Amino acid sequence: MRVTIADIAARLGGEVVGDAGLTIERIASLEAATPNSIGFLANPRYRGQLASTQAACVIVAPALRDEAAARGAVIVTPDPYLYYARLSQWWVEAVRPAARRGIHPSAVVDASAAIDPSASIGPLASIGAGASVGAHSRIGARVVIADGCHIGERCIVHPGAVIGADGFGFAPNQGRWEKIEQLGGVRIGNDVEIGANTCIDRGALDDTVIEDGVKLDNLVQIGHNARIGAHTAMAGCVGVAGSAKIGAYCTLGGGAIVLGHLELADHVHVSAATTITRSILKPGLYSGVFPFDDNAAWEKNAATLRQLHALRDRLRALEKKTP
Amino acid sequence: MRVTIADIAARLGGEVVGDAGLTIERIASLEAATPNSIGFLANPRYRGQLASTQAACVIVAPALRDEAAARGAVIVTPDPYLYYARLSQWWVEAVRPAARRGIHPSAVVDASAAIDPSASIGPLASIGAGASVGAHSRIGARVVIADGCHIGERCIVHPGAVIGADGFGFAPNQGRWEKIEQLGGVRIGNDVEIGANTCIDRGALDDTVIEDGVKLDNLVQIGHNARIGAHTAMAGCVGVAGSAKIGAYCTLGGGAIVLGHLELADHVHVSAATTITRSILKPGLYSGVFPFDDNAAWEKNAATLRQLHALRDRLRALEKKTP
Amino acid sequence: MRVTIADIAARLGGEVVGDAGLTIERIASLEAATPNSIGFLANPRYRGQLASTQAACVIVAPALRDEAAARGAVIVTPDPYLYYARLSQWWVEAVRPAARRGIHPSAVVDASAAIDPSASIGPLASIGAGASVGAHSRIGARVVIADGCHIGERCIVHPGAVIGADGFGFAPNQGRWEKIEQLGGVRIGNDVEIGANTCIDRGALDDTVIEDGVKLDNLVQIGHNARIGAHTAMAGCVGVAGSAKIGAYCTLGGGAIVLGHLELADHVHVSAATTITRSILKPGLYSGVFPFDDNAAWEKNAATLRQLHALRDRLRALEKKTP
Repeated sequence: MRVTIADIAARLGGEVVGDAGLTIERIASLEAATPNSIGFLANPRYRGQLASTQAACVIVAPALRDEAAARGAVIVTPDPYLYYARLSQWWVEAVRPAARRGIHPSAVVDASAAIDPSASIGPLASIGAGASVGAHSRIGARVVIADGCHIGERCIVHPGAVIGADGFGFAPNQGRWEKIEQLGGVRIGNDVEIGANTCIDRGALDDTVIEDGVKLDNLVQIGHNARIGAHTAMAGCVGVAGSAKIGAYCTLGGGAIVLGHLELADHVHVSAATTITRSILKPGLYSGVFPFDDNAAWEKNAATLRQLHALRDRLRALEKKTP
Repeated sequence: MRVTIADIAARLGGEVVGDAGLTIERIASLEAATPNSIGFLANPRYRGQLASTQAACVIVAPALRDEAAARGAVIVTPDPYLYYARLSQWWVEAVRPAARRGIHPSAVVDASAAIDPSASIGPLASIGAGASVGAHSRIGARVVIADGCHIGERCIVHPGAVIGADGFGFAPNQGRWEKIEQLGGVRIGNDVEIGANTCIDRGALDDTVIEDGVKLDNLVQIGHNARIGAHTAMAGCVGVAGSAKIGAYCTLGGGAIVLGHLELADHVHVSAATTITRSILKPGLYSGVFPFDDNAAWEKNAATLRQLHALRDRLRALEKKTP
Repeated sequence: MRVTIADIAARLGGEVVGDAGLTIERIASLEAATPNSIGFLANPRYRGQLASTQAACVIVAPALRDEAAARGAVIVTPDPYLYYARLSQWWVEAVRPAARRGIHPSAVVDASAAIDPSASIGPLASIGAGASVGAHSRIGARVVIADGCHIGERCIVHPGAVIGADGFGFAPNQGRWEKIEQLGGVRIGNDVEIGANTCIDRGALDDTVIEDGVKLDNLVQIGHNARIGAHTAMAGCVGVAGSAKIGAYCTLGGGAIVLGHLELADHVHVSAATTITRSILKPGLYSGVFPFDDNAAWEKNAATLRQLHALRDRLRALEKKTP
């Protein structure tokens, strides 16, 4: 794709400072930019790269207009990161062949599944009986959508994801496990993105529900009967156990775990690798990670941690003795 | 499916109190039950839902007979959860088309694999040379069973699982890694259930062994040469490293990790997200999770944790000074 | 395969002590060895097994020559584990049918993909437009290599791996997420091994890069724009977030997590289940695992941990009072 800076501003807005006629052939990070690239500065931490970047044009916020303009062409916009997102979308439309609509001949789609004609089903995908895929959704290679599971509109499901395997439900019976058949399905809203090899289990009785605008990264596990609120995002390797109810506008960092039957309010943010063991009813940022250290220091502190309660008692005893 | 309460009791036992002629069309949670539903009360924590549920009939334990009967029809049974499990099994038999026996035409099955005629192999599955699948086992869509791996009878393998990829074995050689070919296989007993996208590696020399009745949830990793004892269950995202020997009747919570070459006795229970770093020879419940907190409180405590050993020394010094 | 000890030494070197004419039909652990087996002793911890093993021949280091020779035939070599690795490779060449070169008829390979004629593409794999696979690489069943992703020479990619799904990139926009299209690809060097169901995302602008000799176990997640240095190895369930730069010759234990935009120097080793929250510029071993305990002891210590900072303040106050 070859466009001028003026073309970009005509399509996406923003104020151009400097030579609007320069040609752009590439979007790049400031570090890797070449003289035909456009870059962006969203995080002030990387401000130092302004001086050294070779980019023809940099997208910046108003506060950095002068500093950026001193080195070359600039597009000024209130939210450079959002501007970059939209530029990337325009770029892809132009340079990538549109995903072929319809069903790849190697996919196995049950005759009773309802696939919108504007949707695309990738190679070697498997779509079960009574399942549905909404308008403009793109189902990647090797995705499984099991019987009776529903995908909304404009969703993206990446390769290897499994939607609607059985939830993990067993009744103990004299040391053995008796299978509880999973009679519910999975309902996925609109504008949901689901990562590669991510799994979302079908409900035991009711459906597992993923609301509109949810974004799940790769290798995420969503247990049966979970409900994930709208516009919540989860990074890679997150595990959400069965019947958890997670609010809207939440974020879960990579590797976080939410135990079953818990409730998280809207706007709860969980740090990476944190395990949530009880419900959180108040918005905020929550963490629980053992701070890493060099191994020798960690060993000493970890060993002492196993005596922590006893240390507290000893401290109390001292306090009593000390007037 | 439409049955009366009397029909259910005739098939599954239990004592009916109230109108046995009511028609049931749905199994539901007490919360979501409609007037044609049957529900169950297994956890006394949800006892409060008895008053408000619209269910036509509730399955309860003897202790709750009178309380439940006061609101409508009841089936009384010693273990309502097990009763519900069996009801769900009957329901599925009746409402779901039986899994088609035999091999889906899109599956790729080596001519030397032994598939029992009563087993079913799902769409786009891949079964290697010399592999076998026992009677009544159901292999889901897109499962891989590699060369020389064996699945017992009445097993369920969910979509995307990979049985028999190479174990992770390398000999260090001047900073590089020299591959150790994995000459063993995987042997899976009877009545085993394996979750979506779960991986069980083949052994280095001997086989990796999963004994009868084991239940593995989604995205579980079982390293080479591990041995998982009968009727042990693991929730999602568990990782078991190579050569670990886990006893029978164990449970591992979601995201738990067991390091390699360890041994866990029978009846060991590991909490979610706990890392097991040495063998456990005594039955019991074991935990090791950093308690999460709001981020500011966590940061303070985590920073102090890195000085814990030094704090202990300071406490000792004080104790010596204080008579 | 049936060979004599002399045949093995002729091919792989080492000094034979004892009867070089004995026939070997199996490689086995010392514990499981039968009288026609060859075993090895790499870890002095297992020295006690020398006395009891039934192996016809044991591969040992010079220090154990006499002790091992006292019980039967021996091959003496400076590095028994490396010797075993090479023996396993020879064994596989002899006993396993060579992976069929070329593309399995059930695989879906875009016409524009460049597959080296010496490479093999497994059943039901999907290779996208403009992708490439180098000489002698083996792509397993059901692997996805997305558009424009490149695999070097002599690589092994295990079943279910997904190379080149979109990185997890979104710009927040009034509580919703605006997709950032991922314009980069994935570049994988030579001699790389990638585990089952592992995911490596394509870069946002530049490529995600996996350098030569890297070994990734199963269910590993590599975020977009990460760069993994040569000969680094990661055990199962590791998660590396976007834009992390990991050095060469590193190892990450199972379930470890590396947050985004961090840098790890060469020769950094991370213990299993440890979360790396800031860059590590110095080689060494780093850990951060909550020590597990029986649940009652853990509960007490974990509860106290939430007051740790306050305990430190109380200790300080006592210190001030105590002369």
